[in-house]
Amino acid sequence: MIIPSSSITKADKGPVKKPSKSIYSFDEGDKSMRELLGGKGANLSEMTKIGIPVPFGFTITTEVCAYFLDEKKYPELFAEELEEKLALLEVKMGKKFGDAKNPLLVSVRSGAAKSMPGMMDTILNLGLNDKTVNGLIEQSGSERFVYDSYRRFIQMFGDVVMGVDHAKFEEALEAVKEKNGVSLDTELEADDLKVLVNEYKEMVKEEAGRPFPESPLEQLKLSIEAVFNSWDNDRAKTYRRLNNITGLTGTAVNVQSMVFGNMGDDCGTGVAFTRNPSTGEKVFYGEFLMNAQGEDVVAGIRTPQDVSELEKIDKAAYDQLIDVKDTLEKHYKDMQDIEFTIEKGKLFLLQTRNGKRTAQAAVRIAVEMVEEELLTQEEALLMIDPSCLNQLLHPMIKKGLDRDVVAKGLPASPGAACGKVVFTSDEAMQMAEEQNEKVILVRKETSPEDIHGMHAAQGILTSRGGMTSHAAVVCRGMGKCCVAGCSEIMVNASARKIIIGDTVIKEGDIITIDGNSGEVMVGELEMQEPELTKEFKIIMEWADEIRTLKVRANADTPEDSQVGIDFGAEGIGLCRTEHMFFSDDRIKLVRQMILAKDEEERKAPLIKLKENQVDDFVGIFEVMDDKPVTVRLLDPPLHEFLPEKESEIEKLANDLSKDAEDLKQVISNLHEVNPMLGHRGCRLGITYPDIYKMQVQAITEAAIKVQNDGKKVIVEIEIPLVGEVKELLFLRKVVQATIDEYGTRVNFEYKIGTMIEIPRACMTADEIAKAADFFSFGTNDLTQLTYGYSRDDIGKFLPAYLDNGILERDPTASIDQSGVGGLMQICMELGRKEKPDLDIGICGEHGGDPDSVEFCHKIGLNYVSCSPYRVPIARLAAAQAVIRK
Amino acid sequence: MIIPSSSITKADKGPVKKPSKSIYSFDEGDKSMRELLGGKGANLSEMTKIGIPVPFGFTITTEVCAYFLDEKKYPELFAEELEEKLALLEVKMGKKFGDAKNPLLVSVRSGAAKSMPGMMDTILNLGLNDKTVNGLIEQSGSERFVYDSYRRFIQMFGDVVMGVDHAKFEEALEAVKEKNGVSLDTELEADDLKVLVNEYKEMVKEEAGRPFPESPLEQLKLSIEAVFNSWDNDRAKTYRRLNNITGLTGTAVNVQSMVFGNMGDDCGTGVAFTRNPSTGEKVFYGEFLMNAQGEDVVAGIRTPQDVSELEKIDKAAYDQLIDVKDTLEKHYKDMQDIEFTIEKGKLFLLQTRNGKRTAQAAVRIAVEMVEEELLTQEEALLMIDPSCLNQLLHPMIKKGLDRDVVAKGLPASPGAACGKVVFTSDEAMQMAEEQNEKVILVRKETSPEDIHGMHAAQGILTSRGGMTSHAAVVCRGMGKCCVAGCSEIMVNASARKIIIGDTVIKEGDIITIDGNSGEVMVGELEMQEPELTKEFKIIMEWADEIRTLKVRANADTPEDSQVGIDFGAEGIGLCRTEHMFFSDDRIKLVRQMILAKDEEERKAPLIKLKENQVDDFVGIFEVMDDKPVTVRLLDPPLHEFLPEKESEIEKLANDLSKDAEDLKQVISNLHEVNPMLGHRGCRLGITYPDIYKMQVQAITEAAIKVQNDGKKVIVEIEIPLVGEVKELLFLRKVVQATIDEYGTRVNFEYKIGTMIEIPRACMTADEIAKAADFFSFGTNDLTQLTYGYSRDDIGKFLPAYLDNGILERDPTASIDQSGVGGLMQICMELGRKEKPDLDIGICGEHGGDPDSVEFCHKIGLNYVSCSPYRVPIARLAAAQAVIRK
Repeated sequence: MIIPSSSITKADKGPVKKPSKSIYSFDEGDKSMRELLGGKGANLSEMTKIGIPVPFGFTITTEVCAYFLDEKKYPELFAEELEEKLALLEVKMGKKFGDAKNPLLVSVRSGAAKSMPGMMDTILNLGLNDKTVNGLIEQSGSERFVYDSYRRFIQMFGDVVMGVDHAKFEEALEAVKEKNGVSLDTELEADDLKVLVNEYKEMVKEEAGRPFPESPLEQLKLSIEAVFNSWDNDRAKTYRRLNNITGLTGTAVNVQSMVFGNMGDDCGTGVAFTRNPSTGEKVFYGEFLMNAQGEDVVAGIRTPQDVSELEKIDKAAYDQLIDVKDTLEKHYKDMQDIEFTIEKGKLFLLQTRNGKRTAQAAVRIAVEMVEEELLTQEEALLMIDPSCLNQLLHPMIKKGLDRDVVAKGLPASPGAACGKVVFTSDEAMQMAEEQNEKVILVRKETSPEDIHGMHAAQGILTSRGGMTSHAAVVCRGMGKCCVAGCSEIMVNASARKIIIGDTVIKEGDIITIDGNSGEVMVGELEMQEPELTKEFKIIMEWADEIRTLKVRANADTPEDSQVGIDFGAEGIGLCRTEHMFFSDDRIKLVRQMILAKDEEERKAPLIKLKENQVDDFVGIFEVMDDKPVTVRLLDPPLHEFLPEKESEIEKLANDLSKDAEDLKQVISNLHEVNPMLGHRGCRLGITYPDIYKMQVQAITEAAIKVQNDGKKVIVEIEIPLVGEVKELLFLRKVVQATIDEYGTRVNFEYKIGTMIEIPRACMTADEIAKAADFFSFGTNDLTQLTYGYSRDDIGKFLPAYLDNGILERDPTASIDQSGVGGLMQICMELGRKEKPDLDIGICGEHGGDPDSVEFCHKIGLNYVSCSPYRVPIARLAAAQAVIRK
Repeated sequence: MIIPSSSITKADKGPVKKPSKSIYSFDEGDKSMRELLGGKGANLSEMTKIGIPVPFGFTITTEVCAYFLDEKKYPELFAEELEEKLALLEVKMGKKFGDAKNPLLVSVRSGAAKSMPGMMDTILNLGLNDKTVNGLIEQSGSERFVYDSYRRFIQMFGDVVMGVDHAKFEEALEAVKEKNGVSLDTELEADDLKVLVNEYKEMVKEEAGRPFPESPLEQLKLSIEAVFNSWDNDRAKTYRRLNNITGLTGTAVNVQSMVFGNMGDDCGTGVAFTRNPSTGEKVFYGEFLMNAQGEDVVAGIRTPQDVSELEKIDKAAYDQLIDVKDTLEKHYKDMQDIEFTIEKGKLFLLQTRNGKRTAQAAVRIAVEMVEEELLTQEEALLMIDPSCLNQLLHPMIKKGLDRDVVAKGLPASPGAACGKVVFTSDEAMQMAEEQNEKVILVRKETSPEDIHGMHAAQGILTSRGGMTSHAAVVCRGMGKCCVAGCSEIMVNASARKIIIGDTVIKEGDIITIDGNSGEVMVGELEMQEPELTKEFKIIMEWADEIRTLKVRANADTPEDSQVGIDFGAEGIGLCRTEHMFFSDDRIKLVRQMILAKDEEERKAPLIKLKENQVDDFVGIFEVMDDKPVTVRLLDPPLHEFLPEKESEIEKLANDLSKDAEDLKQVISNLHEVNPMLGHRGCRLGITYPDIYKMQVQAITEAAIKVQNDGKKVIVEIEIPLVGEVKELLFLRKVVQATIDEYGTRVNFEYKIGTMIEIPRACMTADEIAKAADFFSFGTNDLTQLTYGYSRDDIGKFLPAYLDNGILERDPTASIDQSGVGGLMQICMELGRKEKPDLDIGICGEHGGDPDSVEFCHKIGLNYVSCSPYRVPIARLAAAQAVIRK
C-alpha cells in the first residue's frame, strides 16, 4: 500500500537557493511567471507583451525577497543587475534618474504570487529631490503639482522606509492648511507646499535621526528593502493566515516609471472591473477621479465618479479604455480588475488582475462566459471558488418585513447581518470571541489594521468610501455583508455613538444592515434563506453532471433535512440522535434514565423517550423518502446531559424525588478527567445496551410506519466510536436482535455499520469491515485523536502554532492529508480488501471544505456529508475534483 | 509495507465446528494433544503411553465443551461414543457401571489446556447408588468406607450438579456428629453414615426439587454437563482474566476409574513436587495422608505428613513413587507436580503437570537442569516466565531489624508484606481499590471464591492448610507473599479480630508477614531490596549473551538510576524532568514560574530552578557514566503543578504576594476540558521556550561538569508529544541554540530527538526523522490516543470490556499489537526509510511486559526501557524473543 509521505515543508528545504537572475524587465516576462514575478509583475509583463499601454519598468523577483529575508543581504551581483535595468529604463523613457532637467520618477510596489491587496507597502514619485523637482516643474509646467507630488513622496517614504508616524505628517499638513485658512488639500498653493516639504524634511530628520536621502538610487534601494520587509509585517501575516495563503516565500517588487493622474485637469486615475463584481452583470464598472493619484480613489477620501462619466470628459481615453478592457477580458478569459491613469490625455494601464467578486457575480460571470463561448463548462466550474458559495447561502432579511430604515449607504457586499454596534476592531474581536456576541463594526473607513475586527464582526458599516474602498473589497472577499460610504451617519468613535439626524445609536445597541440594498436599520430583523438564482442552478447542474462523489447533509431534524434536500443533498450522512434529547420536555426523561439505579428503573423513561424518538424519525424519513439516512446511536458521555450547578442539581433532585446529596455524588462519579476519551459512544452502548435498544426500536417503528404510508425508507444504523471489531460485533448483535423482534413487520431497507473515528479503527479496518455494512469517517474526532488535540483546549496553543507557521491551517477545518488522511487511506485499503464494495463516506465538518472534498474524491470515498448550507459547496468541489484529476 | 492484520477473534470464526471425534481413551492420546484433551487429559494419556500406573479412563475433548456451550446440545453420535468408551473402560477394569456386584466407579474432572487449579468442578465416586454400594462393600470389605464414599459423592454431586448449598450438607454432617457425641468425621460409624446418606438424599430432593439420580449413566451425563458449564462460572472467568488466559474455548472432561486412598490404613493419597517448588532445591517434596481422599490433602483440613515419611509406612510404594517421579521429570524435562493414590499398597498416578514454582525455584531449577544436562541453556531460559522474576525483585523485610514475632506459620510463598488486617475478600478488594489501602487478607483457609481478594491484598495469612493448600499454591502463582497454616492464631472473622494468646489484633490494625520465614509481626516493618541468588545471575548472563535488544531503565533520580544499573540497565530510556519539580522546596519556584505575568517575571524562578536541575542531572550522569541518558523536557500541563483547593490558592497568593481572586482566575484559565489532549509537551515548549531553554541549560551545565570530573556523559535530549515535524524543527533550534551558547565548553556527546506518542507522528515519521537523531515510543500515550481511551477514565467501561471478552487484556498493560503495534511498524518503516540507522526505543510501561518486549524485538527496536525493577524481566524476555524467533 501507499503511505502518503507528508508534504515537504519550507523548513526542510534548507537554506534558500541563491537566485540566478534577480530582475526582469517588463518585456522579459509573461503571465505564466506569477510565482517568480508576483501577480502584478507577471501581468504588467503580459500586458506589455500584448501591446497594452503600460509605463515601462522591471520586476525584482520573489526569490530575491526570500533570499534577502533569510540571509539579510542581497544576492551577489544584484546591485549591478539593478543598475543595468535602471539604465535600460532610462533609455526606454528618455529620462535619467536624478537628472535635474529630465528626471526619471518611479513607483515601487509590492506584488506577491497571490493577491494581498493593501497588505504591503507602496511608494510613489520616487526620484524626486531638491534638484529633480526643477526638471519636473519644467516638464509639467505646474509648480504646485510638483511640490504636491514631492510632499506626498516624502510622506510615504518617511512613513514606510524611515518609520516616521503617519499622523505626524497629517498634523503638519493640517497646520499648514489652518495657517492658510483652507480646508482642502487642493486649496493649498505651490508655495505653501514648498514650505510643507521643508517642514516634512526637518521632521523626518528629527524623528528618524537621519536626513531624508537626496540620492534617488539610495531612495530606491531603501524602498525595495522596505517592501521586502513588509512581507513579514503583522498585517500581511494575519491576511495570509485568514486567507489560507501558504507556500509563498516572499513578494516581488515592481519598479515602474511614474505616470501622473494629478498633473492637471487633463489627467485622472481610476479603478474598474470589466463586469459588475457585485452582481456579475456584463457592464463596465468602475470609478475615477480627475486630477488625482491612484491612492485618492482607493482610500475613499474623495468620492469618485462613475467610470461611464469619463466618456463626457475625455472620449478618446474612454474609447481606448473600453477597447483595452475588452482585450484584457478576452485575453485572460476572466473578469478583470484594472487600474488606469490618464496623463495629459494619454491612457496607461498600471495593473490588471482577475477581479474579486461576490459569489453571485462569480456564478453569473461563469455561466455567461460559457454562453459567450469564452469558456467551456469545465473552465467555468473551475473559475468559482466553492467556499464563496457560502455567501449565496447566507440568510437575508426576511422579505415583507417593515423596515425602519434610518440611513442608506452603498450596497458594498451582499448578505445581511445584525449585531451590537462596536467602534474598534479590538472590541469587535473581544466581544465576538470572549462573549460570543454578534457585532457590527462601525467605522468612518477601514484599513488593513482592521482585518481581525472585520473577521470577527457579522458585518461592516462605514460612513466613507465607495464600492472599491478597503471595507468593500475585503468584505466581498470574506463573503461578509458590508454597507459602505453611508454618509448620512456621523460616526463618533470616541463618544462611542452614531448620530443620524436626531437618532443616536450607542455602542452595544443592536442594528441590522443589508449589504444588498445598503440599508441600515435599528434593532434586529428576522432573516430568511436566500433565493437561489438561475445561474446558480445551472452551475449546480453542470457540477452534478460531472461529479462522481455523492453529497449528503448532516441533519438532525425534519427541517434541516428539508434544507439539505433543497440544496441537493442525496441523503443524510449523519443524524445525531442526542440532539433530540436536549429539548425541554425530553431532558428530564434523559436525566431520569441516566440517574436510574438499575435497568428496571430505567425502563419507564426509556419507553417515553422511545415514543418521542419515533416521532423524530418519522419526520426525517418522510422528508428523505427513498434517500439513505445514517442514524448514529447515542454518542456523548452521559454527564453532558446533567446539570453542573448546585442549585440546578437541587432542583433536579426535587423533580426526581431523589436526595440532593446522593445526586451530587452520582453526578460527581460521572465526572471524567478527559471526557473526550471517556465513557461515550459504543462504550455506552456496551455498558447500557437498553439505551441503544430503545433507539433501535424507535428507528424500526418509525421506519415501518413511514414505509407503510407509502414512502421508501433506507436507514443506516451507525455505531459510534468503534476501535475494536468486538465492540461492533457485540452491538451489532444487540441491534439485529432488536430489529428481529419486529419479525415480518420489518419492511424497510437497513444496514448496520460504524463511524470510523478512532485511529485503531483505521489500523484494524479489515477486521472491522467484517462486521460492518458501511463505514463513515468521523474526521472531527479522528483529527483530534490523530493529533492528540482537544478541540476545546486547542485555543491555548493554536494561535502560536499558526503564527509560527508550525501549522499552516487549523486541521479541524481542513483535513490534514498526510496524518489523518494517511490513516483514512489505510482504513479504505484494509476495509475494501475485506469488502471490495464497502460503502465509505465522511461526516465530519471537513465534508464541506473544498480541499477536503477534493481529497475525499481522490482517495475514493463514496460520499461526503456536511451541514445543509454547505451542500452546494461540496457539490461544486466534487465536480472540480473530477476536472482537476 | 506490511500492515499487520489484526488477529482473528473467536467471534469471527462463525459457529463452532462440530467435532469429528469427541472422546479419546487414555491409550489414544499423548502430551502433544493439550489443546484438544486439556493439560490433565494429555498428561494422563502420556503417562499411560510411557507405562506409568494410571487408573484407566477417557477424555472428552475441549471441542465438545465449546460445541456444547455454544449450541446447548452435544454433537451428533456423542452419546454413542460415550457408551462405547464406557464399555471399553468396563472391559479394561473388569467392572461394570451400575453393577450390584462389581461396580465401576469413576471420577469426573475438568482439565483445560492451561492449568486453572480449583476453578472448575470435580466429582468423585460417581457410580455409587443404593444398589452398587453393596458390591463395593463386598470388594473393599469396609461398610464404613463405602458409606463415607457414598455420602461424599452425594455431597459433591448435590452441590455441583444439583445446586444444593454446600453449607446444608455441612450442617447435616455436624448434626450427626453432635448426635453421636464425636468431633471428627473419622469417628463416625458405618451406621451413622448410612443415616447421613439417607438424610442427604432427602435434603437433595427437597432443595433441588428432584431426586438424587440412581442411574450411574445419568449421574455421569449430568456431571459432564456440570463440568462444561463450570467453564463459564464467575470464578473461572475471573481466574482467566487475572492470569491472562485467553484463546481457549472450553475445558476437557476426564472420566477415570476410581482408586481409593481412603479404603483403609494400607491406602493413602498425596501430592508432591519433584523438586522443592519454593526454593528449587533438588529434593522430593510433598505431603500425604493415609486413609484419605485427595481433597483432604489439598483442602488443608487435616495436616498432612511429609512425603519422606512414606518410606517408613510403605517402603515398596515409596520406592516406586521415587522411581516414577524420576521418570516423569526426565521425560517432561521439567519439575513435575504429581498427585498419587495408594490403594491397598498399589501406587497410582492421578495427575502430572509442570509444577508451579516460585521465581527463585524457577531460576534454580532451570540452572541446575542445565548442569544436570537435562536442558540446554536456551531451553532453560524458555522455562522461566519472565513476569515471575517480579517475585525475586520484590522488597523483603530489612535485615537486622528487631522483629517482634507474635506467631509463626508455614513460609508458603516468598516475599514480605505489610498492611491493614481484613477478613473477607470483598473488603480486601474494596479497601485496596477504593481507598488505595495496603491490606493483608487473614482467613482460616482460602478457597477459589477468594481469588479477587487475594489479588487485591499485599499478602495472605491463613491459620490452616499446608504448603500445598489453596492459599499457598495460588499465592506462589501470583508471586504474592503468603504465610499459611499459622495454627497459633485464632481467626474470628465475625468478631473481626485475631487472637494470639493475650494479643488481640483487630480489623484495620497493621501487621507484617514474612513469606520466607513464616513469621507474623504486629506493626509495619521497613523493607529492603532482595539479594539476588547466584542462579539468578547465571540466568541473566545467559540471557544477556543471547539477546540483541538493549534494555534501559526509566529513572528520574540518581537512586533509581543506581537500582537500574544494579539490575543490568544499559542506559536510561526516560528521565522525566517534571518529577524533579514536585519536591517541597521546588514546587514554590515552579508555581512562581507558571504564574509569572511575562517572560521577565519568569526569569528569577527559572534561574533558581535551573540551579536545582543542574544538581539533579549531575547525580544521574555520574551514576550512568558512559551510558546514554534520555532526558525528556517538561511534559505535563502546567495546571498539574498548581493547587486546586480554595484555601491552598489563598495560601499561595499570600506566598507570592498576589491577589487571591486574580490567582483563582489565572488557575481557572489554565483549566482544560481534556488535559490529556491539551496544552502540554512540546506545545508548552513552543509557547514558553524559556522553560525548555532553562532545562537545556541545566542539562548542559551538568554534563560539562561531570565530563570535566572524568566521567563520560551521553545525553539524549527528548522533545515530547511531537505530532508535526515543524514542532520538532522549532524546538530543535531552541535546544541547539541554547547548547551553542556554551561554545567550546561543550565536551559531551548529545543527541536531540523525540518521543513518538501521537498517532500523527507515526504517520509522518519520515518527515519527523529528518529532524530527529532518535525516536522513543511513548506507548502509554500512543495507546491512549490510538484507542481513544483515557487511562483516568477507562475504569468506567474496562471491566465490562474484559468481562464480555471485548478486550482480552488491558492494552495499557501489554501492547495492542494490531492497532498500536501497527502504527509503531509504520513509524519504524517510514523513519528508517529516511534514516536507516535511526535509533528507536520504547519507554512506556510496556517496556517491562514480556509479550511487549518480544513484539519490540520482532519489529526491530534498538531498546526497551522500563522501571528499574522490571529490567531483569525485560532482559529475559528479550533473550526468549531471540530463541523463539
